[in-house]
Amino acid sequence: MVEHPGAGTTLAELEALQPDLALAERLFAELRVRTSQGTGIVRDSYGRGEQIGHEIVTSAATAIGLETIHDAALAALSALRRAGIVPEFDLTVMAIRAEEAAWFDGSYLGSNAAFGLLPATLIDTVRRSDTGRTLADHMAECGADLAALRRGEAFLSPSRLRGFIELHIEQGPVLEGAGVPVGIVTGIRGCRRFRNARCLGTYGHSGAEPRGHRRDAVAATVALIRELELRWEAIEAAGEDLTFTVGELYTNAAFHGPSKIAGETRFVLDFRAIDDATMIEMRDLAFSLAAEIGKRYRVRFDLGEPLFSAPAALDRGMRSRFATIARHLSIPAIDMASGAGHDASVFANLGIPAAMLFVRNAHGSHNPAERMEIDDFAAAARLLVAFLAAEAAAA
Amino acid sequence: MVEHPGAGTTLAELEALQPDLALAERLFAELRVRTSQGTGIVRDSYGRGEQIGHEIVTSAATAIGLETIHDAALAALSALRRAGIVPEFDLTVMAIRAEEAAWFDGSYLGSNAAFGLLPATLIDTVRRSDTGRTLADHMAECGADLAALRRGEAFLSPSRLRGFIELHIEQGPVLEGAGVPVGIVTGIRGCRRFRNARCLGTYGHSGAEPRGHRRDAVAATVALIRELELRWEAIEAAGEDLTFTVGELYTNAAFHGPSKIAGETRFVLDFRAIDDATMIEMRDLAFSLAAEIGKRYRVRFDLGEPLFSAPAALDRGMRSRFATIARHLSIPAIDMASGAGHDASVFANLGIPAAMLFVRNAHGSHNPAERMEIDDFAAAARLLVAFLAAEAAAA
Repeated sequence: MVEHPGAGTTLAELEALQPDLALAERLFAELRVRTSQGTGIVRDSYGRGEQIGHEIVTSAATAIGLETIHDAALAALSALRRAGIVPEFDLTVMAIRAEEAAWFDGSYLGSNAAFGLLPATLIDTVRRSDTGRTLADHMAECGADLAALRRGEAFLSPSRLRGFIELHIEQGPVLEGAGVPVGIVTGIRGCRRFRNARCLGTYGHSGAEPRGHRRDAVAATVALIRELELRWEAIEAAGEDLTFTVGELYTNAAFHGPSKIAGETRFVLDFRAIDDATMIEMRDLAFSLAAEIGKRYRVRFDLGEPLFSAPAALDRGMRSRFATIARHLSIPAIDMASGAGHDASVFANLGIPAAMLFVRNAHGSHNPAERMEIDDFAAAARLLVAFLAAEAAAA
Repeated sequence: MVEHPGAGTTLAELEALQPDLALAERLFAELRVRTSQGTGIVRDSYGRGEQIGHEIVTSAATAIGLETIHDAALAALSALRRAGIVPEFDLTVMAIRAEEAAWFDGSYLGSNAAFGLLPATLIDTVRRSDTGRTLADHMAECGADLAALRRGEAFLSPSRLRGFIELHIEQGPVLEGAGVPVGIVTGIRGCRRFRNARCLGTYGHSGAEPRGHRRDAVAATVALIRELELRWEAIEAAGEDLTFTVGELYTNAAFHGPSKIAGETRFVLDFRAIDDATMIEMRDLAFSLAAEIGKRYRVRFDLGEPLFSAPAALDRGMRSRFATIARHLSIPAIDMASGAGHDASVFANLGIPAAMLFVRNAHGSHNPAERMEIDDFAAAARLLVAFLAAEAAAA
């Protein structure tokens, strides 16, 4: 373990280590070309784009002489390989599937599966949101061992892991605003999300139906969302961490009309916080408002049960070693929380020391305009290589 | 003119007049069978269903010996025919197209066209909302004389019209609530409607984007709609007539997502009132709120210009004669305003005495569940026949 970079390795040695950026640029370019859909790149969980990503990484890893098991890869390990550094511990590059809940209701499917933590029936009951195809079908197509998954067999054991590091683009504007290329993540917000909330009212004529008779799904939904928004403002004003977002909201295009009272809405309520107590407060408020507003507007809210992912604190020791090395290498880096969820939270919540680095990124994330400069990636990768070399020297 | 049914005809004669309900039921049944789309019936403006409706009415009118010109029809005239009553004035049954703005932005297209009131370029610029096909194409397909329309030629002249009567199902729950089969309409609400309002923000990650950076189209749109709703409540509490409805509201399904801040919404703001000053107040409030909230949420509202249809007062003389005859025939009828717009408002606003009868109807309107009992239709048709006979006797 390195408390400062002199322990077992010299500052000059750390400074000399350069990540293999040429390899990184080749991988990024191949991924872009092969998974582009016009604007941006698309890699749905257990879908075609994700599979291509894994193939690219596997073949690159094999080319530099690394062992690959199912998953594998690379710029940092390529640098260590070139420098002839072979740590005492195994260094594994994990390309984890299905961090995102875009196709399937549920985050961190890949990392949870690796620890045998997916409920036995889940892969057969969770279905792709657009086609209805099961998660099991998609996983089988990508080569997963369904029988092992159904038995809850673990591929990874927390006690055998020394630590977990995730390098990721920042998905908000904090690093851009601060003018800093790298963030050292302090903790990861959890999420409680009503993914398929509905409000059921009755269609009616917009001019002919008096207010007192209406069962207006839009008016009721707007009242609900507005109340939750105002509560968020109050919580934030009190200094508590929280985000509240309605990313999807729509009347039913098959039945709605410009001169109709809307009989139905569908929407998402997404709450995220470092402290689960805050998310629980918002969840309970959503339920009580739905009951109260539903009665007042003569409609019925069906919020469903929220999805949950736990917040996670990242390892203080790893964070402080990253900060020390960044300072020594003159790589500007600041501490910051992660608003989005990440696989690192699965590792952290299993008691495995986990760390995350953010790379500055323009235009947010989860949209085709996201944009990372390769120089910022280089700074973060350089910090990662130096950290790994220092850990290897100290082991 | 009849001030009471004794002027020129006897009460016994009026009581003996029965509308041709067998004919009405045949027409309703044929319309249902030929324009059904599974649940309910669909007759879009200048579309297939509307065309079928016109064909059914034309052939029925011809069968009972009426002249038809383009349009034509019938239960009331069939009754007068059987009773041998031939009024001094012409009695025309008008089947007017395109009262509704479902396909095309604009109400009362057919009645306005009949008076030469459609702006010359309108039929080439207004397009069907889903296919983009022009109104002119649809009108030509249904046999309209496009050259005459473009010249603004009038088919009807207000000075030659003695009056206009429209019989319609009620589109709200008032008659059902009152337990009365027939309503005599006092006035028709006008409408000011932002048909294609939008809010443009920026997509972002729901967890990673701090409140102060967000350009959240849903949050801003919800704030706008909620403020308008609260203003409606205040106006209604002050005793003023108004309805406010958001019948369509949706994020963009091609880009939205459960963990994204929404970068776009589309919605409709529909204001209706008997008094245009109230609609103007709401229109101006929508513009000022859009500017203020847009600034506060760092988004841009593009409300567009609202469509306008004028409110209309119906003829006091005709209303009182309908009420007198209803009383004499023991047909329960109440006075009530029309919340929805109707072709009758075009006639009334041209200075033509106009009247409307409502027939009790369950489950509102503009939805497949709307349901009129034939007994209620019979009561209204009987009132109409008696009214026409009394007018004929008095002419």
